[in-house]
Amino acid sequence: MKNKTILLANRPVGMPDESHFNMVEEKIPSIKEDEVLIQTMYLSVDPYMRGRMSDAKSYAEPYKVGEPFIGGIVGKIVASNHPKFETGDYIEGRLNWSVYNVSNGKNIRKLNPEIAPVSTALHVLGMPGLTAYFGLLHIGQPKAGETVVISGASGAVGTIVGQIAKLKGCRVVGIAGSEEKCRFITEELGFDEGINYKTTPDLLASLKNACPNGVDIYFDNVGGTVSDEVLKIINFQSRTIICGQISQYNLDKPEMGPRVMDKLLKTSSLMKGFIVSDFAEHNKEGLMYLSKWVKEGKITYRENIVEGFDNTVNAFLGLFRGENIGKQLVKVTDE
Amino acid sequence: MKNKTILLANRPVGMPDESHFNMVEEKIPSIKEDEVLIQTMYLSVDPYMRGRMSDAKSYAEPYKVGEPFIGGIVGKIVASNHPKFETGDYIEGRLNWSVYNVSNGKNIRKLNPEIAPVSTALHVLGMPGLTAYFGLLHIGQPKAGETVVISGASGAVGTIVGQIAKLKGCRVVGIAGSEEKCRFITEELGFDEGINYKTTPDLLASLKNACPNGVDIYFDNVGGTVSDEVLKIINFQSRTIICGQISQYNLDKPEMGPRVMDKLLKTSSLMKGFIVSDFAEHNKEGLMYLSKWVKEGKITYRENIVEGFDNTVNAFLGLFRGENIGKQLVKVTDE
Repeated sequence: MKNKTILLANRPVGMPDESHFNMVEEKIPSIKEDEVLIQTMYLSVDPYMRGRMSDAKSYAEPYKVGEPFIGGIVGKIVASNHPKFETGDYIEGRLNWSVYNVSNGKNIRKLNPEIAPVSTALHVLGMPGLTAYFGLLHIGQPKAGETVVISGASGAVGTIVGQIAKLKGCRVVGIAGSEEKCRFITEELGFDEGINYKTTPDLLASLKNACPNGVDIYFDNVGGTVSDEVLKIINFQSRTIICGQISQYNLDKPEMGPRVMDKLLKTSSLMKGFIVSDFAEHNKEGLMYLSKWVKEGKITYRENIVEGFDNTVNAFLGLFRGENIGKQLVKVTDE
Repeated sequence: MKNKTILLANRPVGMPDESHFNMVEEKIPSIKEDEVLIQTMYLSVDPYMRGRMSDAKSYAEPYKVGEPFIGGIVGKIVASNHPKFETGDYIEGRLNWSVYNVSNGKNIRKLNPEIAPVSTALHVLGMPGLTAYFGLLHIGQPKAGETVVISGASGAVGTIVGQIAKLKGCRVVGIAGSEEKCRFITEELGFDEGINYKTTPDLLASLKNACPNGVDIYFDNVGGTVSDEVLKIINFQSRTIICGQISQYNLDKPEMGPRVMDKLLKTSSLMKGFIVSDFAEHNKEGLMYLSKWVKEGKITYRENIVEGFDNTVNAFLGLFRGENIGKQLVKVTDE
């Protein structure tokens, strides 16, 4: 048996493709004192990783050319010299895109498989869930009766945002890129409306129709022309939460758009970018509520699973083709 | 003696000129029970009034065609049937652009001429002062050592923002449109740097030079291409306070510009529009501190005075030609 690792081959300009990735095979690493060997079960591919492929300054350090991709991984301890971990333990951590990782225990957390399937540590009970929780509740501060619009509504974060907003008594309108996605968010997740931005002849008219009282909170995962239309109907003292800008990540050069400042001025509105780690001190609070809501059946989720480590790059590139509904995962090892 | 009033003749598209205003003469109004007659001493012309000349939805109600302009006025009671006001009292209020106004006492506040010259009720101890106070302190929350950049730095609001920021221990960089304005804010108001955006060959290079540690707070009165450059060097968790967008008020159609959301995302930054009335519950606090700072000589101000009611429109239009340093006032009546 060999280990496999995916490296950044070179930095893309515009849309990345297979040529920007490199897979290497090496022998499975051995562990030293106070280390564990982790076998990857699930690997998370996320849109933000596109940013790390470039060397532009951002909140996340760029990946280095010739070095491994790093991301959220759920795995099983298969060998341990660490006092706190035993063989068979399930863990989640930010690790290399490899079938096997070595850890000193500092970048992993143990999972309790009795709370929920361990893969949820990569979405509803992990980074995307906390992102939804902090963005909507700490920044957006929704009040019952307000209207929340979510772009990228059927993705890992958007699906959770909408369900929390419903729990808080809001009217929830999701924007997504297919009829299937719109059906999923309305019929399975309970959103009030789903708008297919790819087929609507007039996005602004669709938004006005779905939001008769305007928009109080806009949770934005997408940016670009979708946001241009939403921002036309924001209310006085609205809050726009910038969580992602997937429409912009693969542009050759920055896009021009209508200036937003005058609209923010005239509506006394807030626009705030964030990253989940801004709220790290509240992680325990967030995971407590999310776990509770999942257990009570108040929040549900869908996983979009690609099988096999060798399909990781394709699953990642699929994010930018809008292929996933719910959380995109790669299943590397069967239980 | 006649009364004079300035009306909105018709709504401008683009830059307004004299043709959009109409002056009418009528007899001086008489007062009824519980009313006062006010003679205007000083009249305030402010950039935000341009917005009210259009019928686009905004925080301030549009002026009606054929009806008077309304704005901040300092005046003297010349006749009173109101128990709370006596002839000779000084007041400030939002009143018609007229030489004489009638009030029922609800839209005016009595001024104490011993605290400061009564004209200050139209700037440092009035709406522009409170705007500076709330925007910088309540939204911006400056910390000692941070860098604050102000556009429209030599205007009624910008001059106060910069001085408060200095009181809070910040590095303060002002952007203004002439050498005289830059000298004024640095030599007379104590700003650390002044940048003349009209003559610098490279605004971004000038900003980088003046802000070696980047920009933590951007207090924006101007918008447009000036903001484009400032936003390139905002720091992690920066705050951009949208107070005005004078560069945009007279455009025929909305301007396109570089999208800002991705930058806000990558820096976990805030952008917030506001209007002074958002913080009305804190007016007392604000006026208390501003009065204290003025009395202690910690905040100074300059008035740019045009004499004569008939020059009101020209003084207003001059705002958009960048003619004023400090607060633009029209002196209507000598003491």
